[in-house]
Amino acid sequence: MMTVDKRNRVTADTQAKAGILIEALPFLKNFGGKRLVIKVGGELLDNEEASASFAQDLILLKSVGIQIVLLHGGGPQISRAMEKLGKKPEFKNGLRVTDQETMKIMSMVLLGDLNRKLVSLLNVHGPKSVGLSGADGNLFSVEQESPELGFVGKLKNINTDLVIKTLENGYMPVIGSVGVDDQGQAYNINVDLAAGNLAAALGAEKLLVLSNVEGLYETFGDENSLIPEIKAKGLKKMKESGSLTAGMIPKVDGILAALDGGVKRAHILDGRVEHAVLLEIFTPEGIGTMIFRDRSD
Amino acid sequence: MMTVDKRNRVTADTQAKAGILIEALPFLKNFGGKRLVIKVGGELLDNEEASASFAQDLILLKSVGIQIVLLHGGGPQISRAMEKLGKKPEFKNGLRVTDQETMKIMSMVLLGDLNRKLVSLLNVHGPKSVGLSGADGNLFSVEQESPELGFVGKLKNINTDLVIKTLENGYMPVIGSVGVDDQGQAYNINVDLAAGNLAAALGAEKLLVLSNVEGLYETFGDENSLIPEIKAKGLKKMKESGSLTAGMIPKVDGILAALDGGVKRAHILDGRVEHAVLLEIFTPEGIGTMIFRDRSD
Amino acid sequence: MMTVDKRNRVTADTQAKAGILIEALPFLKNFGGKRLVIKVGGELLDNEEASASFAQDLILLKSVGIQIVLLHGGGPQISRAMEKLGKKPEFKNGLRVTDQETMKIMSMVLLGDLNRKLVSLLNVHGPKSVGLSGADGNLFSVEQESPELGFVGKLKNINTDLVIKTLENGYMPVIGSVGVDDQGQAYNINVDLAAGNLAAALGAEKLLVLSNVEGLYETFGDENSLIPEIKAKGLKKMKESGSLTAGMIPKVDGILAALDGGVKRAHILDGRVEHAVLLEIFTPEGIGTMIFRDRSD
Amino acid sequence: MMTVDKRNRVTADTQAKAGILIEALPFLKNFGGKRLVIKVGGELLDNEEASASFAQDLILLKSVGIQIVLLHGGGPQISRAMEKLGKKPEFKNGLRVTDQETMKIMSMVLLGDLNRKLVSLLNVHGPKSVGLSGADGNLFSVEQESPELGFVGKLKNINTDLVIKTLENGYMPVIGSVGVDDQGQAYNINVDLAAGNLAAALGAEKLLVLSNVEGLYETFGDENSLIPEIKAKGLKKMKESGSLTAGMIPKVDGILAALDGGVKRAHILDGRVEHAVLLEIFTPEGIGTMIFRDRSD
Amino acid sequence: MMTVDKRNRVTADTQAKAGILIEALPFLKNFGGKRLVIKVGGELLDNEEASASFAQDLILLKSVGIQIVLLHGGGPQISRAMEKLGKKPEFKNGLRVTDQETMKIMSMVLLGDLNRKLVSLLNVHGPKSVGLSGADGNLFSVEQESPELGFVGKLKNINTDLVIKTLENGYMPVIGSVGVDDQGQAYNINVDLAAGNLAAALGAEKLLVLSNVEGLYETFGDENSLIPEIKAKGLKKMKESGSLTAGMIPKVDGILAALDGGVKRAHILDGRVEHAVLLEIFTPEGIGTMIFRDRSD
Amino acid sequence: MMTVDKRNRVTADTQAKAGILIEALPFLKNFGGKRLVIKVGGELLDNEEASASFAQDLILLKSVGIQIVLLHGGGPQISRAMEKLGKKPEFKNGLRVTDQETMKIMSMVLLGDLNRKLVSLLNVHGPKSVGLSGADGNLFSVEQESPELGFVGKLKNINTDLVIKTLENGYMPVIGSVGVDDQGQAYNINVDLAAGNLAAALGAEKLLVLSNVEGLYETFGDENSLIPEIKAKGLKKMKESGSLTAGMIPKVDGILAALDGGVKRAHILDGRVEHAVLLEIFTPEGIGTMIFRDRSD
Repeated sequence: MMTVDKRNRVTADTQAKAGILIEALPFLKNFGGKRLVIKVGGELLDNEEASASFAQDLILLKSVGIQIVLLHGGGPQISRAMEKLGKKPEFKNGLRVTDQETMKIMSMVLLGDLNRKLVSLLNVHGPKSVGLSGADGNLFSVEQESPELGFVGKLKNINTDLVIKTLENGYMPVIGSVGVDDQGQAYNINVDLAAGNLAAALGAEKLLVLSNVEGLYETFGDENSLIPEIKAKGLKKMKESGSLTAGMIPKVDGILAALDGGVKRAHILDGRVEHAVLLEIFTPEGIGTMIFRDRSD
Repeated sequence: MMTVDKRNRVTADTQAKAGILIEALPFLKNFGGKRLVIKVGGELLDNEEASASFAQDLILLKSVGIQIVLLHGGGPQISRAMEKLGKKPEFKNGLRVTDQETMKIMSMVLLGDLNRKLVSLLNVHGPKSVGLSGADGNLFSVEQESPELGFVGKLKNINTDLVIKTLENGYMPVIGSVGVDDQGQAYNINVDLAAGNLAAALGAEKLLVLSNVEGLYETFGDENSLIPEIKAKGLKKMKESGSLTAGMIPKVDGILAALDGGVKRAHILDGRVEHAVLLEIFTPEGIGTMIFRDRSD
Repeated sequence: MMTVDKRNRVTADTQAKAGILIEALPFLKNFGGKRLVIKVGGELLDNEEASASFAQDLILLKSVGIQIVLLHGGGPQISRAMEKLGKKPEFKNGLRVTDQETMKIMSMVLLGDLNRKLVSLLNVHGPKSVGLSGADGNLFSVEQESPELGFVGKLKNINTDLVIKTLENGYMPVIGSVGVDDQGQAYNINVDLAAGNLAAALGAEKLLVLSNVEGLYETFGDENSLIPEIKAKGLKKMKESGSLTAGMIPKVDGILAALDGGVKRAHILDGRVEHAVLLEIFTPEGIGTMIFRDRSD
Repeated sequence: MMTVDKRNRVTADTQAKAGILIEALPFLKNFGGKRLVIKVGGELLDNEEASASFAQDLILLKSVGIQIVLLHGGGPQISRAMEKLGKKPEFKNGLRVTDQETMKIMSMVLLGDLNRKLVSLLNVHGPKSVGLSGADGNLFSVEQESPELGFVGKLKNINTDLVIKTLENGYMPVIGSVGVDDQGQAYNINVDLAAGNLAAALGAEKLLVLSNVEGLYETFGDENSLIPEIKAKGLKKMKESGSLTAGMIPKVDGILAALDGGVKRAHILDGRVEHAVLLEIFTPEGIGTMIFRDRSD
Repeated sequence: MMTVDKRNRVTADTQAKAGILIEALPFLKNFGGKRLVIKVGGELLDNEEASASFAQDLILLKSVGIQIVLLHGGGPQISRAMEKLGKKPEFKNGLRVTDQETMKIMSMVLLGDLNRKLVSLLNVHGPKSVGLSGADGNLFSVEQESPELGFVGKLKNINTDLVIKTLENGYMPVIGSVGVDDQGQAYNINVDLAAGNLAAALGAEKLLVLSNVEGLYETFGDENSLIPEIKAKGLKKMKESGSLTAGMIPKVDGILAALDGGVKRAHILDGRVEHAVLLEIFTPEGIGTMIFRDRSD
Repeated sequence: MMTVDKRNRVTADTQAKAGILIEALPFLKNFGGKRLVIKVGGELLDNEEASASFAQDLILLKSVGIQIVLLHGGGPQISRAMEKLGKKPEFKNGLRVTDQETMKIMSMVLLGDLNRKLVSLLNVHGPKSVGLSGADGNLFSVEQESPELGFVGKLKNINTDLVIKTLENGYMPVIGSVGVDDQGQAYNINVDLAAGNLAAALGAEKLLVLSNVEGLYETFGDENSLIPEIKAKGLKKMKESGSLTAGMIPKVDGILAALDGGVKRAHILDGRVEHAVLLEIFTPEGIGTMIFRDRSD
């Protein structure tokens, strides 16, 4: 078969393009109309370039019919805002003691700053996304974890109605991880667990967890020990054996919640890699670490 | 017709109840399925008791089939947050100069604190409301008013799609008045004008403007000069004649935008009065000042 | 919180109104979209004032989204028409012997006079109701009770399709209690039993039985022995013990049919009390006698 | 082509059946889903045999997808009932003076007796029809014709909503010709005019007027002068020239109202002829007198 | 009851027409909205007169709301086309060896000639039918029967989606019996089996098998032994006893597949009889041989 | 921004993939839900490799939500079939004289062979396409062009209903270019004109004409004179000036019919180029010759 190269003609290069589009075909077929829950860590939201490429990926995926639900954290930004206001963080058993003022700052940073910015970034080329919090439509109902931690909440119920209607209306929900109790009081909730449980509640096809690490390592610190894929069972063993870093534990807990709840696959991706989401979804190689349920179904 | 008083029996008192319910009937018939846009000033959101009675009213109105869209300001709260951060307000021609940091504080206070709280308050008895901003679904598109004012925005376009779908999905939109330009940059917008224009764009039946004054006075300072009702024409004359107070001017501008855009009636109500909204909608006397279009249609 | 009293201002009195509307809120929430079957005795239809207040109540309840199905009797009116035509009533075991001519008079009075009037009364403020009989859409199919009673029918089947579609089309069905057999012959049926069974077949939330007594008495004749509430079990015992008056027995049979068929609550109300229905539905005290199923579910 | 005659075989006779079914095909195609308004005079309802064959025809037409709306009178039956009650008819200018008692008798006979019987007859083989009056859903709104005639009504408005929904729900509306004013008072209305105007309001394909005459005659009394078809214009001339009998005038007025309102064809049929309706609709010859609009469209 | 005969009047003859239309009523009621699968043998498609009357019948049945699915063979036409191209038929165990070229000829004759003609014939009076093959929407998926027979296919799966949507869209599917394997290769399939299995998959009310015999005979060659009706069980016995002719065996297999799959009745009809289908459906006598399931349900 | 290369890591190469997917984004957005009419010449259908890549492209485009309608010719295949049957082609004024036998061969080749194969090829990975002809749902109604040409048809009417419903049902219509007159007689129609007119009737976004030339040349024979884009006006001038080759004239006529009927753009593509359709739709460079309407709208 010939390829031609002059005025408006086909070249080897354009043929390569066709090949890549063709390669993406089975992935498009598999994901069309399916739900994809993505959690992005706050550490990536400071990176404007990564955020822009990330937003572009989401819009592309949405435009080809994938239903995306995005959850974001905001740890570093909250810490900076607290510092600015002269507020000192206090921890008990690794969990942040959240008094009323801390909670207000968290809510303001997550919902009033980061969430609004993400939505605006996604909407530059059209009204595609809507910012939500756990208070909207009582999405994340919580109860207090323990009195000594203050407003740290434990997920009690997920009301998916608003998220599903938002998707059906053609918008992408962008969710800031704040929960509410039955008095309407806001609570600090773990965004990884919220994402994993929401993925299960929505019957999502996949959960993607983006952070600033390449994936899961067998040996922390050894770049060559990146694990390309692992079963849920294996991941549970790693956790029990204590070989996970502190930062990885909540991510793993969220992923296991998703897989236990019926989600087929979860991925830990390096959000600093340009178009990480697009490449994970559309290329056969995949990137980062894939975790899958023990019985493939 | 007899009324009885012992065990489980009807008394004059319960008959009076019936009378009040009966009186509300024609108003219910008129408003069922119609849209009502309500703007509540930030000054009222500090008042917990007023907020609670206000929330109860909105849930009642919603439960009988009225489609409510709520917009809120947050002036005093923004000022307090700025002070806390050692930021000094600057004004030009009565408009607040809004630099990048001021805008971030405004967005955090309006969307991350006040909006979230209002939504939580409304959702205590069930998932009834959803918080939105002008960024969500590109609701309020703006352009810069003038470079010297910084991020002060002029409404360029209202995209009602998300608001209408939110209503159709059975949720009450609660809107924080932040606009976005076509680059996704947030802007400070006038909530009264946003409410008036949105009421017109939604074909609302009524616009209610709640603040901490009883209504419009013929003579400022004279409590006896409260105007029960006035035509749009008369209101325009009052504005031109300079007899309005500075605080009343943006409210009047928003109301005139609504009436010019086809809304039949607007009301200025005292939000400090318990159940002001309920009484305005359901009782024949009405409260505050009613402004209506020149030709009744 | 202040209340004010001059021109267009809020007074203590208007605040009381708000309180009553607020009190009605949880009842509105509970009944919205639910079905309510109401049986009104013929003795009340002669009372123009009671009929007018009753019609007003039904329109109010319908306007707030309650699906009402009304059944009516017409005993006194039928007796008067028979007398006028020189026809003598004959009874066997307390049941009226119904010959062809009696049946024709019953049908004419119930469907051609009372039903038409009730519908007209309800439709004065708009096309809200539709008159039906057991012949329409084969609503009440019957077979002969016993040859010696003539055209006295026993309910064999209830076809709810037409009633449900009438409700879905936004009309209130007003049903005259005439049954038909499979040859199209009209039959005299007991309206209390028809109402109770229809309530069960429609999955109604409540059955209201309106007559000209205050409710159920423990001791007939002792006004102080009105029973505010009683379980179905207790009511069955009362019936078995023979302590019910003759006039109460069919009402009780209809109520027990409804409760056995899944209806949660039934009420015996005094229809002479102005706005009895409205007060029963919208006030916490309730009126008359409430009968509820043994296990609250 | 052969035809065979033994066990289970085709004969010339069964082939003739096929021919007749085939002949009916184009008529079925033309009427499928269309609306047909039929007015049947009270004089035919005394004839049990004619009523049964008429009912069978309507069910057949309905079963093949024609939307039928039936209106009926009841003149002779009303007169008999009045006599029985010792009530004397009084006329002014050919119109019956209708006092309150006369109106009550009319309503009872039309709605409580004749209408119920027609519905029962149609429903013997399944729930196919629903009885309606002008009071149901405010179908026929009237105002008083003149005070000296009492409750004789002039059609002011037709509300087709209920009739259309009844058809869409799969039921045949059977309408007794009683009108109501805006106070809910019943009125005596002309059933021919009601039928003609309703046919126009429903956009009916055809209006059939069944009575006990063969059709329209050029010369009254001359059986050979039956007119097979005539334009609306010609019919108007006949009326103006005074050549119509008194009994024919309201029929002609109703027909002209239908044709002026857009109905294409009307027919005067002899309801005593077995299956007159079926034959008019399904055979090429037609029967009775056809009246059509001046411009065929 | 009189019948009249002059100008536009009813005669005994037109009354007979009414009788036949009335007789057809219960059949119309039974089949409305039901599915009817009809298989017509290729031998009948050469007969222009029979085809025209057959097409007229189908359009009539469709016009009264019966959902018809037509399958056709083309044996004689395929044989003639093969001869023309100098191709000799070869058989093994009664099955035609189908090489690539034979398959191509079959496909061309069935789909390119016969199917197109049938569709055109049905569409002369409006766009009523659509030609389909087993390739369209993967209707008939097959696998190879045995390598030595070449492209003779065994039904593996029936995908009814396209057929159902075609019916729902208001078109009659006309299906040429070609199957495809999972590589898209066309296969020769038995049209009787395809029809029987499709009837079962569609939940058809009836299967009609039209050929050029009167029906099933008890004794082949004895015209008087035509069987009017037989149970599936009896038919199975006949097959096992070897009393069926070779030509009847595939028809019987298809019919048994239908009945085993839930179809209530099947008929073997003589397609040479004018309007055989119409008469079978609409007359009480029926024609040909009816086969029914053992338990009537 | 870093890219990484070891186990499951991102490389420059995978980043290039992302770039190509990103580049395709605006095209996907523009075409989603739009209709694309594609005409493929018979000369390409002999080329198995080209057909397979072409089918893959169509499935990809369909899977991302583009509504594709495919029309195909079959000139060379018809000629070969005629030769095989000893039939000689005859031409008058460049148009093929089409006698009854020729027409039958055309129909068999187009619908029974080529169409079936294309559908099977497209359905290998799922039931995605349906074969249609101009007879199905009376898609292409024609009248005779001139008696001396026999069954050569001129398009008289296009009935898009079936095509639109096929698309709405989720299938791709694959259309063989045979027309029918009002007697159901098949006719030879020009597939280019059929495609152009159908594109206009469907409100298609684009018409693609695939053949075995690179595009349109300014100077026939000069490979360097390929025209990348031209306005409809310019194309008309070229046609009038006689500079088009005979083979190009019908293509140009079809394209002009499409553009005159409202289609915005048409393309002449070289179908021998692998993935020509994909590259034309998804890459900014485009290939072949684009023809656009004079006023861009």
